[in-house]
This record gives sequence, C-alpha cells and structure tokens, in this order.
Amino acid sequence: MNASQDRLGPADYSATPRFAGPPTFGLLPRLDEVQAARPGAPIEVKILGVPFDSGVSYRPGARFGPAHIRQSSKLLRPYNQATGAAPFAAQQVADCGDLGVNPFDIDEAIAAVQANADELRADGAKLLTLGGDHTLALPNLRSVHRSHGKIAVLHLDAHLDTWDTYMGAPYTHGTPFRRASEEGLLDLARCMHIGIRGPVYGAEDLTDDEVLGFQIIRADEYEFTSVAAIVEQMRRRLGNAPVYLSVDIDVLDPAAAPGTGTPEAGGLTSRELLNTIRGLQGLNLVGAEIVEVAPAYDHAEITGIAAAHVGYEILSLWANRESAPSGPAGAFLTAD
Amino acid sequence: MNASQDRLGPADYSATPRFAGPPTFGLLPRLDEVQAARPGAPIEVKILGVPFDSGVSYRPGARFGPAHIRQSSKLLRPYNQATGAAPFAAQQVADCGDLGVNPFDIDEAIAAVQANADELRADGAKLLTLGGDHTLALPNLRSVHRSHGKIAVLHLDAHLDTWDTYMGAPYTHGTPFRRASEEGLLDLARCMHIGIRGPVYGAEDLTDDEVLGFQIIRADEYEFTSVAAIVEQMRRRLGNAPVYLSVDIDVLDPAAAPGTGTPEAGGLTSRELLNTIRGLQGLNLVGAEIVEVAPAYDHAEITGIAAAHVGYEILSLWANRESAPSGPAGAFLTAD
Amino acid sequence: MNASQDRLGPADYSATPRFAGPPTFGLLPRLDEVQAARPGAPIEVKILGVPFDSGVSYRPGARFGPAHIRQSSKLLRPYNQATGAAPFAAQQVADCGDLGVNPFDIDEAIAAVQANADELRADGAKLLTLGGDHTLALPNLRSVHRSHGKIAVLHLDAHLDTWDTYMGAPYTHGTPFRRASEEGLLDLARCMHIGIRGPVYGAEDLTDDEVLGFQIIRADEYEFTSVAAIVEQMRRRLGNAPVYLSVDIDVLDPAAAPGTGTPEAGGLTSRELLNTIRGLQGLNLVGAEIVEVAPAYDHAEITGIAAAHVGYEILSLWANRESAPSGPAGAFLTAD
Amino acid sequence: MNASQDRLGPADYSATPRFAGPPTFGLLPRLDEVQAARPGAPIEVKILGVPFDSGVSYRPGARFGPAHIRQSSKLLRPYNQATGAAPFAAQQVADCGDLGVNPFDIDEAIAAVQANADELRADGAKLLTLGGDHTLALPNLRSVHRSHGKIAVLHLDAHLDTWDTYMGAPYTHGTPFRRASEEGLLDLARCMHIGIRGPVYGAEDLTDDEVLGFQIIRADEYEFTSVAAIVEQMRRRLGNAPVYLSVDIDVLDPAAAPGTGTPEAGGLTSRELLNTIRGLQGLNLVGAEIVEVAPAYDHAEITGIAAAHVGYEILSLWANRESAPSGPAGAFLTAD
Amino acid sequence: MNASQDRLGPADYSATPRFAGPPTFGLLPRLDEVQAARPGAPIEVKILGVPFDSGVSYRPGARFGPAHIRQSSKLLRPYNQATGAAPFAAQQVADCGDLGVNPFDIDEAIAAVQANADELRADGAKLLTLGGDHTLALPNLRSVHRSHGKIAVLHLDAHLDTWDTYMGAPYTHGTPFRRASEEGLLDLARCMHIGIRGPVYGAEDLTDDEVLGFQIIRADEYEFTSVAAIVEQMRRRLGNAPVYLSVDIDVLDPAAAPGTGTPEAGGLTSRELLNTIRGLQGLNLVGAEIVEVAPAYDHAEITGIAAAHVGYEILSLWANRESAPSGPAGAFLTAD
Amino acid sequence: MNASQDRLGPADYSATPRFAGPPTFGLLPRLDEVQAARPGAPIEVKILGVPFDSGVSYRPGARFGPAHIRQSSKLLRPYNQATGAAPFAAQQVADCGDLGVNPFDIDEAIAAVQANADELRADGAKLLTLGGDHTLALPNLRSVHRSHGKIAVLHLDAHLDTWDTYMGAPYTHGTPFRRASEEGLLDLARCMHIGIRGPVYGAEDLTDDEVLGFQIIRADEYEFTSVAAIVEQMRRRLGNAPVYLSVDIDVLDPAAAPGTGTPEAGGLTSRELLNTIRGLQGLNLVGAEIVEVAPAYDHAEITGIAAAHVGYEILSLWANRESAPSGPAGAFLTAD
Repeated sequence: MNASQDRLGPADYSATPRFAGPPTFGLLPRLDEVQAARPGAPIEVKILGVPFDSGVSYRPGARFGPAHIRQSSKLLRPYNQATGAAPFAAQQVADCGDLGVNPFDIDEAIAAVQANADELRADGAKLLTLGGDHTLALPNLRSVHRSHGKIAVLHLDAHLDTWDTYMGAPYTHGTPFRRASEEGLLDLARCMHIGIRGPVYGAEDLTDDEVLGFQIIRADEYEFTSVAAIVEQMRRRLGNAPVYLSVDIDVLDPAAAPGTGTPEAGGLTSRELLNTIRGLQGLNLVGAEIVEVAPAYDHAEITGIAAAHVGYEILSLWANRESAPSGPAGAFLTAD
Repeated sequence: MNASQDRLGPADYSATPRFAGPPTFGLLPRLDEVQAARPGAPIEVKILGVPFDSGVSYRPGARFGPAHIRQSSKLLRPYNQATGAAPFAAQQVADCGDLGVNPFDIDEAIAAVQANADELRADGAKLLTLGGDHTLALPNLRSVHRSHGKIAVLHLDAHLDTWDTYMGAPYTHGTPFRRASEEGLLDLARCMHIGIRGPVYGAEDLTDDEVLGFQIIRADEYEFTSVAAIVEQMRRRLGNAPVYLSVDIDVLDPAAAPGTGTPEAGGLTSRELLNTIRGLQGLNLVGAEIVEVAPAYDHAEITGIAAAHVGYEILSLWANRESAPSGPAGAFLTAD
Repeated sequence: MNASQDRLGPADYSATPRFAGPPTFGLLPRLDEVQAARPGAPIEVKILGVPFDSGVSYRPGARFGPAHIRQSSKLLRPYNQATGAAPFAAQQVADCGDLGVNPFDIDEAIAAVQANADELRADGAKLLTLGGDHTLALPNLRSVHRSHGKIAVLHLDAHLDTWDTYMGAPYTHGTPFRRASEEGLLDLARCMHIGIRGPVYGAEDLTDDEVLGFQIIRADEYEFTSVAAIVEQMRRRLGNAPVYLSVDIDVLDPAAAPGTGTPEAGGLTSRELLNTIRGLQGLNLVGAEIVEVAPAYDHAEITGIAAAHVGYEILSLWANRESAPSGPAGAFLTAD
Repeated sequence: MNASQDRLGPADYSATPRFAGPPTFGLLPRLDEVQAARPGAPIEVKILGVPFDSGVSYRPGARFGPAHIRQSSKLLRPYNQATGAAPFAAQQVADCGDLGVNPFDIDEAIAAVQANADELRADGAKLLTLGGDHTLALPNLRSVHRSHGKIAVLHLDAHLDTWDTYMGAPYTHGTPFRRASEEGLLDLARCMHIGIRGPVYGAEDLTDDEVLGFQIIRADEYEFTSVAAIVEQMRRRLGNAPVYLSVDIDVLDPAAAPGTGTPEAGGLTSRELLNTIRGLQGLNLVGAEIVEVAPAYDHAEITGIAAAHVGYEILSLWANRESAPSGPAGAFLTAD
Repeated sequence: MNASQDRLGPADYSATPRFAGPPTFGLLPRLDEVQAARPGAPIEVKILGVPFDSGVSYRPGARFGPAHIRQSSKLLRPYNQATGAAPFAAQQVADCGDLGVNPFDIDEAIAAVQANADELRADGAKLLTLGGDHTLALPNLRSVHRSHGKIAVLHLDAHLDTWDTYMGAPYTHGTPFRRASEEGLLDLARCMHIGIRGPVYGAEDLTDDEVLGFQIIRADEYEFTSVAAIVEQMRRRLGNAPVYLSVDIDVLDPAAAPGTGTPEAGGLTSRELLNTIRGLQGLNLVGAEIVEVAPAYDHAEITGIAAAHVGYEILSLWANRESAPSGPAGAFLTAD
Repeated sequence: MNASQDRLGPADYSATPRFAGPPTFGLLPRLDEVQAARPGAPIEVKILGVPFDSGVSYRPGARFGPAHIRQSSKLLRPYNQATGAAPFAAQQVADCGDLGVNPFDIDEAIAAVQANADELRADGAKLLTLGGDHTLALPNLRSVHRSHGKIAVLHLDAHLDTWDTYMGAPYTHGTPFRRASEEGLLDLARCMHIGIRGPVYGAEDLTDDEVLGFQIIRADEYEFTSVAAIVEQMRRRLGNAPVYLSVDIDVLDPAAAPGTGTPEAGGLTSRELLNTIRGLQGLNLVGAEIVEVAPAYDHAEITGIAAAHVGYEILSLWANRESAPSGPAGAFLTAD
C-alpha cells in the first residue's frame, strides 16, 4: 500500500512563496499538526532541535543552530534527484520544535535530552536531532542503545571527540564518544570517524581512539583516494549493525562551513560530504544528528544550507530504507 | 473583571531558555494555540507577518523581515517598565504567522493583504502587521477605513511615501499614502509624517503632500526641539481620530537601522523613536504596521531588535488603552 | 591583419592604480569612448549590465549584480595564461553600461531587454550580459534566435529553470528555458544543463526537462568523473550549433558563491567552472550571460570575482574564436 | 614628587606603528615587564582579562571579549584631553593578561576569579577587569568588600541583574547584584543602576531591586534631562562610599554596541556614557569592570573601541584621584 | 537669469531605476558628458575622487572610498528640503571621476593632487574632493591658497591632524594642517576644528594646535550645548574669510561611521554633522573634501551614505551661495 | 638525546582554556620567556610578525595579518597526526612578537626587515615570518642568501610576483622575486611557483619569469593531475638546494581565503595546500614566510585558520627535518 498521498507534507509551494512558509525544517508540518491531521497514524521520522552549547570548548553559539538550520532549509524540495528518494512523501516526517534544556547545568541537560529522545522514539519514530553542540551525542546514543543494543557510530567530524576530560569536565563536546564507549553503548568493531584532521594532543589520542572502537578515515584520504573508495570502506566497517550517524558540521572545510566553533583547515567539500552520506543507502540507520552549527560565524547561511542538505540526505536514506540502492548514487556503491 | 491570568501568554521563561523558545513574536502563542486553549475567547491583538517586497525601489529583501523581527524579539519580557503596561497579560495577543502573497503580481498581493486583514479584524481584533515593504500600508488602510472611517495616519519614516508613480507603477512602497488619500481613506486634517529627511524630488513634493492631508515633522526637529515637544504637536494633530500607526524602520538613523532598503543619514535614535511612540498613549490607535526591515543589510540584529521593541511599545499602547497616562512615559504627556 | 594595436583597450595600468581605474568591466572602455576613438570601426563584443531581479523567487538583490561584478573585475589583466588568449587586444570590447528596466512590470522588462539586445547586436557584436536574475535568459535567447535560428543552450546552474509557473507567474527566474523551448527557440537535440543538484519537485521535473530539449550533467559528476570527461560530453552535445552560454553563478558551491539567491550545497569550485568554460574553445558561441550575483550576500567580493573571471573566460573564447585549441586548456580537449 | 618619568609606559609610538605594538591594553607593559623594569615599585593599576561567558543567558561569546578590547585599544594615547588626566604616566599601570577559568563549572570559575582578584589586589593595586560576562561582578565585589567593606555599586547596564535564578541557577550573568546584596557586600543606600531599559518580568523586579539597595536611572532620562543632571544625581547617591563601577557594554544602544549578548533598543550613545563616567571624578573608586563584549557580533570593532575608551576613562579617574575636578569634564560637575 | 533648465542634471529617475543609474556621484553627469552637451558653458562644481591612502597610520582602505561614496549616493534627489537648495539645478555639477596617483610615493602623489586641483579649478570651478585619506588636505589647501590667499580651514574630525611627523614622515594623514600652517596657507585667526575627541599625545598637542591657528570645539560640546550654539561659534570664527571645509568622516561616532581608519568613541551623529554643515550657509566656501571613508570596515553602506549626504549638503551650500539664509536651516542661524 | 621535555612548550591546555591562552602563535612561549626559562639553550625556530603592507597594489590591510594569524592559531595542538611530527616538542619554538617598520618608507622598511632577520637568525635559528605583504620576501631572501648562498625559492601564490615595477616603484609586493633574481640570490635552476592562475599582462610575463629562474605549476594542474604528481615535480625541481618557502595566502581559492588583497578565482583548497607543503618533508628548508593575510576581508577567521595551519605544517617540517619521510604524508612521497 502506498500511503504517501495521505501523509502531511510540506507547505504548498504553489500557494505560498517559500520565504513565507512555516519556520520548520523543510517547511514540513509541526508534530502537533501531524497529530491533528492524522490521529493515530505512525510518524516515521521526528526532527528535533536542541539549542544547547554549554559543552563547547572554543567558539560558542551553537545554541542558535536549530533555528538557523531551519531558516536555511526553506529551499528544500520533495524529490531527491541524486538518489530517487521522496523523503517527504515516502514517510511521515514531523518537526518537533526545540527542546529547551538548562544551559547552566550540563548534567541536567544531558538527562533531559536523553529522556526526551526516549519519549520521542517510544513509538518507533526515527529521530534526527539538530544541535546544539556535540555533547548531545551521548544522550542520543544512550537512547538508541536502549532500543537497538550496541551501536555502530558513523562519526563525520574534524575531531575525534574521544578525549577524556577538559578542565576536569567529563561531559563536553570533545568527549561524547569516549563516554559512550566506556558505557558500553558502542559496537567496538564497527565505529568509525570520517573527516578527521588537524593537530591532536599526541599519538596516544589515536591509539586510545582505536581501543575505544573507532577506525579513522582522515579528510586527506578524499584527496588521495575517492568518495567511492571511502564509501566502500565505510560500508565494510559498518556492516549490518544499527548505525547512528553523527555529523559535526566542522567535518566540512572552513570555506564551506565557517559557522562552527572549532574549525580546522583541510576539510571536506559539501559535495564530498553529501555523497558520503548517500553511501549509507541500505544500511540500518537508527538515528542521526547534525551538530555544531554556530550561526554567529556563518555567512549568507552557507553553513546552514550545508546542514540542511545533510538533513535532507538523512531523510532520504530513511525514505529509501526498504529499497535496493538505485539511481545515480548507486553508481559507486558496491554490493555489501 | 481581570481575566489576565486566563490569557495564554508567552512561553515559560523559567522552564525553557529564550533561545529555545517558539519562533513567534515575543515567544507569544500562535493563533491556533490560543484558539485551542481558549475557544471562543476574544483575541484582542493579532500579529501578522507579510513577507512581501516587490514594491521596493532600491535595496530589496524586506520579504525576510517578519522572520527576522520575530527572531530579534526573543528577549522581550512581559512588563513595560517605561509605561507600566503588561502587554502580554492585559490582552490576548496571538501570532498569526505569515501571509504568503504573490511576489510577481503587486495588485494580487495588495488584494490578498486587504482581504486577509478584513478577515483577521472581523472579530474586532487589532492587527499589527510586520512587513514586508511599505506597499502594505494601502491595503491595511483600506481595511481599517472600512471599519473606522476616515483615518488619521501617523507615519514615522524618512520618506513621504506620497509620490505618484515610479516607472509608471502606481502601487509601490513610495506611493501608499497618496493612493490612500486619493481613495478618501484619510482624515486630511489629522495625518502626519514624523522623521522626514533627505533630499526629495522638488518643493512640490512638500506642497502636494500637504494637500494630501499630511503635516511634516522633520527628523531635524529632534535636534532643535525635544521629544516632548514633538509628542505634544503629534497629539494635537491626531486628536481623537482613529489613528493608524505606520512605522517604516528607516525613520531610524542608518546607524540604528542599517537593515533597510532606502536609508537616509540624519535619522532618529531608537530612544527617540520609542519615546515618540509611547507618546500615543491614550489615543485611539486602530491598527499598526512595522515595515521595511531588510535583514540582508542588518548586523547583529540591531535593526530587528529596534523593530521588535517598536512592536512591543505598540502592544503596550493597546494594553494601556483604557487607562489614563501614567508611569514615566506620562512625564512628558500633556493632557489632551 | 593584426589590428590589435588599434583597438581601444583597458585603462593604462602603468599610469593609474587599478583601484583608481574606471568603473567598467575589466577597466575596459565605455561604448561611447570606443565610438569616439574609433568611429565606424567594428565592436566585436559588447558588455551590458541589466540590473533586474523582480523574477527572483527567494533571496533578491541581483539588481546590484552588474555594479558588483564590475567592481570585482578590476584585477583582470590582458593575457589569459590558461588559454593564450588576449581578449582585450584580439577584439574590440566595449562596456555599454546598464540597461534600466522596470522593476514593477516583468513583461515590460522582458520586452525592453529583448529590444535592447536586438539593437546592440544589430551590428554583429556579440553580447555578454551581466545580470540581474535568470529571467533575462528568455529575451536574450529570443534575440540570438532571431539572428542564429535554433540555439543550443549551455546552461550552467544548480537548477533546471525549466519549471512552468511560480505562483501563477509564467515569466520568472525559474522558467526561462521552458518558455524558450515552448517558443521554438532551442535546438532540442543540443541543449544541456551542467551543475544541476539539490532537491527538485518531482521526477517529472527531469522527464519534462528532457522533452524540453535538455541533457543533464549533475554537479556530482565532477566528483565521480573529471572536468575533461564532462567537457568532452558537453562538446559532443553542443556540436556545431550556435551556442548560448548561460551561467547562473549558483552553479558554484555556496562556499565559492555565497552572493546569490537560491544557493544549493554540493556545487562546483570556481576552478572546475573556469575549466569547463574553457572547454568551449572553438565552438560557435553566439552570446552569453552571467546571472544571479546578489551582492548583499557576498563576502569580500568572492562571488563577484568568480563572476568576473567567468566573464573573462567568455571574452577569451571569443578572442580565440578563429584559432585551433591550444595552450594548457587544450590539454583536455578532444578534437571535434 | 613626580615619578611619572620613572614609570613604564606604553610602547613608543614614534618607533613602532601602533598596529605593530604589543597585544596589551593601550600598548601598556605586561605585569612581568613592569616587575622586571621597576622591581619593588608600586603598581597602582592592574588590568586583567577574564574570558568567561558560561553565565550568559542569550548570545554567548564574551569569552573572546578581553582579546577584542585589547585589539581595539591600540589607538589610545597618553593624554586625556577631556579631563586633563595622563593615565599612563600618573600611575603605574600593568596588563596582567588573561585569567583562564573553567567554562564548564560556574562555581569553580567564580572562586578562581575571586582568589585571583584578592591576590592581584593584595599590594593595594586597583583592579580593572575586562570580561567576560557579568557573572564576574560577584567575585569582584566579594574581593573589594573584603578590603573596603560595604560597597556602593555604580552599575551601568540595560538590565538590573538583580534577578534571582535562571533555570534554577543562582549564579549567572543576570543575578550578581542580588547575590551581592544578599551576601551583605553592598551599601544599600548607595547603589545605583544607570541606563536601565527594555521590558522586565514584572513590576516586582523594580520593587525587589530597590530593597536590594539600588536606585534606578533609566536610559530614557538621558532623553528628558541631561548628562549633567544625571551625573549630579549619581554623585549624590554614591557620596563618599567606596564605589565599584560595573559597566555592562549593553548600556550602550545596539547601534553603538552591537557586539554584546542581550542588546536592548533605546540605549546610551558612547558620548553619553563616557561623560557619565567622567562624572565620577573625585569619588572613591575602588575597582571597576567592563563586561559583556561579545566580538562575534561586533562590527569594525565599534563595540571594542567603546569598551576601550571606557577603560581609558576609568584609568583617567584613577590618575586624577587626588586632584580636584578640573578641565572640561569639570564643567558640569557640581560640588558634592 | 535662471539657466537651471539648461544644465545637465542627474539621470532621469522616471526612466531608469536608481540602481541602474550611472556610477557617478548622485547620478550626476560625467565631466566629458557636460562638456559635450554644453560646450563652453561654465561648470560651477567639480567632484573628484582621489583613491589614495598611503598616508594612513592605522586601518588602511580609504583608496576604495570614492567608489563607495558614489555607490552610496544613488538615492540622492534634486531638492534639499532642509535648506531649500536645488544643488543639481542651480549650478552645473560634473563628476570628474578618479585621479589615479602613486600609492608608493607620497610626495609624488601630493604633487599630482595639487597639479590636478589647480587644473580643475583653473576655470573657476569649485572642487569637492572625495578621498582617500587626509593627506590630501595639504595639496588641496595649497591649490585654494593659490587663488584665494590665506584660508580659514573648517576641519570636522575626531583628530587634530596637526601632528608633526609620524615615524619620521612629514606628510601623512595626521599632519596636513601643521604643514599647511607652516607653509603660510592658513588664516591663523580663522581656523577651527569641530568634533575633536579621544586621547592625544600630550597637553602640548593642544597648545601647538592653537599656535598653528586652530580653535577647538570638542565633540562633547554637542552634549553640553547645542548645534545652534556651535554653529554660531563656528560662524563667528570663520567670518568672511575664504573657507575650506575638510570633513574627515571619523568626526562621526563609530556607530554612524564604522567604515574609517582611526575611529574614536564619543563622536557626532550624522544629524548633528549635517546640521553643522548647513550652518555654513552664506559663508565663503571655496572648496571642500570628504576623506577617510574605508569601505572594508563599512556595513550596509552606512558610512558611505553619511559621506554622500555630507557631499550633498556641500553642493547645497554652493547652490545657495548668493541667497540669504532661508528655509528650515535658517532657524538657528544668527545674522553674520 | 631527546630533550623535548626540557623545551618550553605552549600554554598548558589542561589548566587554561585555549581562548584564555597567550596571544602568541599556537599559544607558544614568547622569545623572552624562552630565554628566561632556558638561558643559553638553542632556539631552533623563531616566529616573527611583520605588520607591513605599504607594498600592496590593491586591497590593503595585511598589516593586521600577524595578530590575526596568531588569534586564529589558538586551536593548534602539539601532535601532527598527518605527518607524525611533534613540532612544539621536537624543537624549541619561540614567538618573537612583531617587528614594527615604517609604513611610509618602503626602503627603510625593507632594510629593517633584513637587519632584523639577520639578527634573529644569527644563532642559527630558522625564521618563520608572518606578514605583512609580499614585499617582505626580498629582505628575507637577502638574509637567507647570506648564510645559505643561492636559494631555491618555492613560491606558492596565485601571482608570479616577478613583475618589474609598478607605477615606477621597484619594491612592491609584485616584484620581490625579480629583484631577488637580479640580485643573484636565487638558484635559477631550482625556483618554482605553484598555484599560479588568473590573467597576466602578457605572454612575456611567463618568458621573463622563466629567465628569472622559475618553473610554473598552475593551479589548474591540481584539477588535471594530482597533489602527489605535483609534489613529485616539486621535489625534483627543488632537489637538495636550500629552500625558502614563500606562501602567499592567495594561492588558496577566494572561497578558502577571502581575507587577502588580490584574490583570483580558481585557486587551491586548503587541503591541497597543506598536502603540498607536507610534500617538502626531508628537503632542506632554510626559512619560510606566510604573507598577504588581510583580516578586514576575512570571515570567521577562515583565512587566518588556513594561514595558521600552514605555519603549523612548516614547523612540522622542521621538526621532522632529520628523519626519513614517514606516516600518512609519506604515502605520496617518492624517494629523492
């Protein structure tokens, strides 16, 4: 049965200009609108903003990220020509607005994010979180671990985020994956960073990271090999595990994403990033987040637009979930 | 009866940080939320965004004004210490979102704005429009004229906006008050511009303007006299007529409002503007609009914040409508 | 005969600093200066600004594009080291200034642009238009069709621009190539988009587009194949037809061209774009335009500089028109 | 005895351009340079940066404030023509660099700031703190209270900062003066806010504030009275008490200080602010701070420059400490 | 005889939108256009850009000032409602474009500026120079001194610009008025600075300055007295001498003029500045310059717009030259 | 012997947040700190800022480059994961602050830079200069030539910088390598430009350049070949000669480096640039400079961050000097 025509989609572009559309991601309906229009019907995907940045170690401001990504998502349209997905029609998507959490108490904030994720996901909906800073990864992983067991984290970032503490603080935007690993949330054979670059504290950062369960594909490998080769390696690593996708927007080069807190030269282009994410098609993606968009440092919404497109590709992956890889994106996908 | 505690107010600041609050003006409830929470109860004030800027003759971009003003209004709090008003509690205010109108057909847009204003105002609600460009003044005036008869326009602007045509076009952001006067919407003895400055086309612009029903207080008079004196003159001119307040944000100096389309040096400070508007206390304000906020030219939201505060003072005037002038603002008000 | 020394070239860089040079494209002479200095001599290339953006569906501001591109073109020098062309010496180029058209009446504007193009081209001059928005493509195509018959459009853009209407409007920046195709202006076997990406409305956008005469090379193909391969495919498609080159600056990635109205992530680098355009060498280029530069969103002129370089490569193509491909650009050109 | 020639002053402007000078406030010497050059000699004034902004409730970023103020202070010269002070020569001033405190633990940060202030002030030096956010006021007041007893706070700000808690947090940038009052640090008859404006939570904010020891001069009074009258009222209130001057840069209008976290329209001009501060001449100023400069929102250093000039006037007050009011600033000072 | 209808005025606003107008000051005709249209007719006012900034001691970039001021002048209209002047019709004004001078050799540049001024002024035309930095004042004063004898300089600036040398260099933007005084170009009883503020090097700067022929009105006096009082003092000082008006845009507060090289807090508003300049009405203004506009630091053209309005008031003064003071500006003018 | 633990490294990141660290490159110690802590110990690398931009022909502002690069270098950490180098531990690095030179006298400035370089290098330290404009290359080359003889210049730039004069000036940012060649400082068989692009004055620019000793790898070659192939060609050319590395930040594409004075489209990504520099591993690098960072045109420090990373790679090359190529960077290095 194709129920797509029943689903509540984005605002009608033929009746209202996009710039006059609702302040939701992709002009999609709010959660309460969906619930009113389709009482009892399943909501496959929920989008949530978490404007929290108290875990940031350098340039703050990601608390304004969710609103900025939504504002930058107004040009998204319903058909993904790169993958053939129709992410707004093939599934019911709803924008749940923002979760307000305490900026003065990191522990309280982490608990609130986790409780809220548990609740939003209780009906089986997949959750796409718009950050906020990377501290959010920990409560998000705790929540998906609860329902899916050991998680294969696919972490797109310039940084490892497996550091131990920062000024004595165990829960910051630089530590979520170490905490998650220590808490036993991760499938240690299946986690992976992509896009890593820039100086680190020492060689032990890399060896620690491996022990914590991660394989590294550095950003430089996009220079020396190809997106297709990286996607193949990524798919091999992730396998059939439940995958949580965590996209720190600073995986992009500062040229493409100035609006972030700890930029590092030598990053990915948005074209590389989008095609890498498309490479997840057919895998078991159980949740996702886009973090570290700091609008005060953005220009002309270029960071916000990149983040919005990342969100769109994630929705597309879920829309394509049941089908075999097809369309142009399939061109570089190896059978798994 | 004081029903204020029953009214649906802004988001609870103690439970959620302001930056995580809803994307409405002043974190106020949406129209549908009010209607659901208080079925049948009166809504005294409606706030509407009209993202239209096809009537702009120079720098466009006011189509993004409503979203920008709302984003810049998140710090507004419920008590006006300058006037003693509690604009969110003394009346039910609702944010009606944006009206999408056709950017490619000015006539169609004007008709849609008017029809929508008629509809929103049908229950007696007062309407505060967030533009969008000044073309909106005409349909807004047509609507208030319908229910209130001849209108005393209080027009705060750097420009007269009583020009005839521009490149042959009769309906643009430079012509609404001439059209309104020609259509018989205005009380010719009670209209007024405040803040006028910059070069005009010729001396006949001024004489024409007078014939169309307007008195002029130039921005320079703030230098040579005082806000109090200007307020007194303003109140004398407006008298007891139904007043429509039209605030073009370019009444402010470019230093205070860079984010606009036709800036002119030598304008008002935001302090002068807010105190001028407070001077309307006790008059019969039947509608209002804030126009010409063009975010692409704004910096750090300073234009948006000024516009948000103007909106707050307008809501405060309505909240104080029944009471005699009091509080600090009363200090410079003469009895009328 | 080499008449280059007779031609009126750009301002003398040894006598005046570039920042003090005239406000023309590449410091080139104005049309009236050329006419006065070389009465009766042919003018091979005319550059015209058309500051019109009333066909824009999202972020406006391209009306300030021509002045911005010219300001950003002051560093252009006379010899193209990539192709061996001397575009200012091999042909007489003149800057015709801006054509003022009515921002309030799209139909009138389109007619005026066409009439003016016909007139400027009457003496056989090739016309390079600096937009302005993409609505301009239609009158420009009408004009070249008049003298050259069915046109092979090479359209570099993130978007198809073959949509039907927008809010009921048939003539906007999203529809010129559908209109052109419907009007019979195009060689349906030889049109092509390059750089397409981002979500579209539906799969039918793509099938419609094909019927209208276009082949698509998506931006992603730059990731999976190479500029050389794309150029080869492009040259095969265009063949010997009269080619009109339409460059929407949003074909570039937002990182390279923030100053535009409808940016989409995943675009081209300026290096890819310039080398693609160089690949046209030897083809029959009958006219060109560079559109959608919106300076209010630009930073440090990076969008303007990219547009200026695109213009320079177009002039270089014309300068090389008679000669066989040579120089570095020839390295990846197949014989046609 | 005039020891000024012995003091270590700013970098020699005749030998090195200002833009090449050291990265200290006003090109002044570092603490260690002074200690090396003048071992054992008294250091009358110490300048300290405290890059801490974890107490911010809205736009963060004041952690980059100290570096920004210093960069914006490079044009300061040694003679204050407005007051006749020679603040770099009349006293030994040293820049102590930045105090790094924990961004993830407000309590730890407050304790560190206090301990450090105690230490820096142990030799009798006056301390000028460059913030950082307003949370810093509490540890700074604790320190001056220790040596001076009950303090008369002169607080220049758009906001009262006497709120109780925010999201349950007692120590934030909105609460320092309530905490200080509760802790008995303040002279309840001699504290004062100047520049207050914008909406508050309720009328009780104002009554609470009075109980906590503060008198309010709203920003609007600059419109209705004069700097001279305000200075007179200020001097009357402060009397002969030990005064701590706390300048939140948002006391300035957003036009003059966009680079801050919670801007409110209707503020002071920098001219009003500087002249108000000059009005403190001859009073017993025991310490001072300049807070809430958030560079990510600044433009062309205008906020930083205003803050640097405020710092300069504070240094000038101390330089003039012993002398009777004189010079131009004295023109509007009444005898106290 | 009223020859105004014969004069060549600005581009026809009814035929072409302002943003499509020519890149001249106020859309006025170029010198060569005037000469062609009105051969032999007098040109009363010439406007010249001098993009030179090699005399700058801090933030450079004023070399891009002339183009920026012109771009910011497109909204100027022909009738000055503040003074009743019609500056484009009452006199023939022509834009002479830019004079390119050597950025690597200050002496050569100064000589070229002087020679060019002599030449442009040879026919009796008054010259308005758009800088460029303040170094230009010296050659400009040499030129007017040649034809008018001892000059009364009215210098609007934050700085004295009577310093002696800077890093040993005698000719910089900080020294022109000392050099001019030393060269005997000035009427020592009639020169004046207005707007001075910020720290200086020492008290001797002020005493030296007086010896060099200048009286000082500090910016603070706008706070303590009034524009009218300042204008009266200014007119008394200038008397009937030939006046050269030198406006450094940093006389404005950084809020109003961020786009400049050595900003100082506490400056004038553009309203104060424009009204001060209007106060020159009826005096013998023999030349003028507007300098130190550095566009890289400007935002939304606010500095450029202020400079353009200053230029407009200067043209208006010349247009009113023969007539008695009248209109609104006359309100505060004392008889002289 | 491994003395790394004795060396004075950067500020302790575990004790102080990076944003609170010292204003030096990479939070490294100042020269005087090193000298005090390790009297007599060798200082292997000295970093010097030279804020000079009077040789700039277009957009000035590189005088603020050193401070900007340092501010943008605060996130650098001690271990280079791309090459395995520990540049802060393997050698003693010290930040020497800025050298103030005369902005009004290019010859004096060049002499001062050379004298200072000679002095700083007298103890055998390698010098990394942060510009400042490219004029600095000449005195820097003179200094290294003195101790190392004929130099192989590796010049990364969009421009040749082998022009002869500009407006008659022999010493500007466009001429250093011609002067150096003429002075006999260069090994004519071993110099090389990488990243060249954009129009030049004529074909003779290229032939002259070859005579002066340079081989050219155009930026386009990164499109058509690979970093590895370019590195191989580069190493072949440089051989075992003493290499001076001169990085003009405009070698990067304007998207990656907007903050520079003469940007050209079609440049390198920062990833390409960093990997090219890594390709120098094992060669005899005797000195280096990073020039033309003009902060007024930068956004969110992206240009500054790129420059800081370039500096980090240079320090890493020196740290690896003795060892054989290893680690990831070795992947594309051919044996030499």
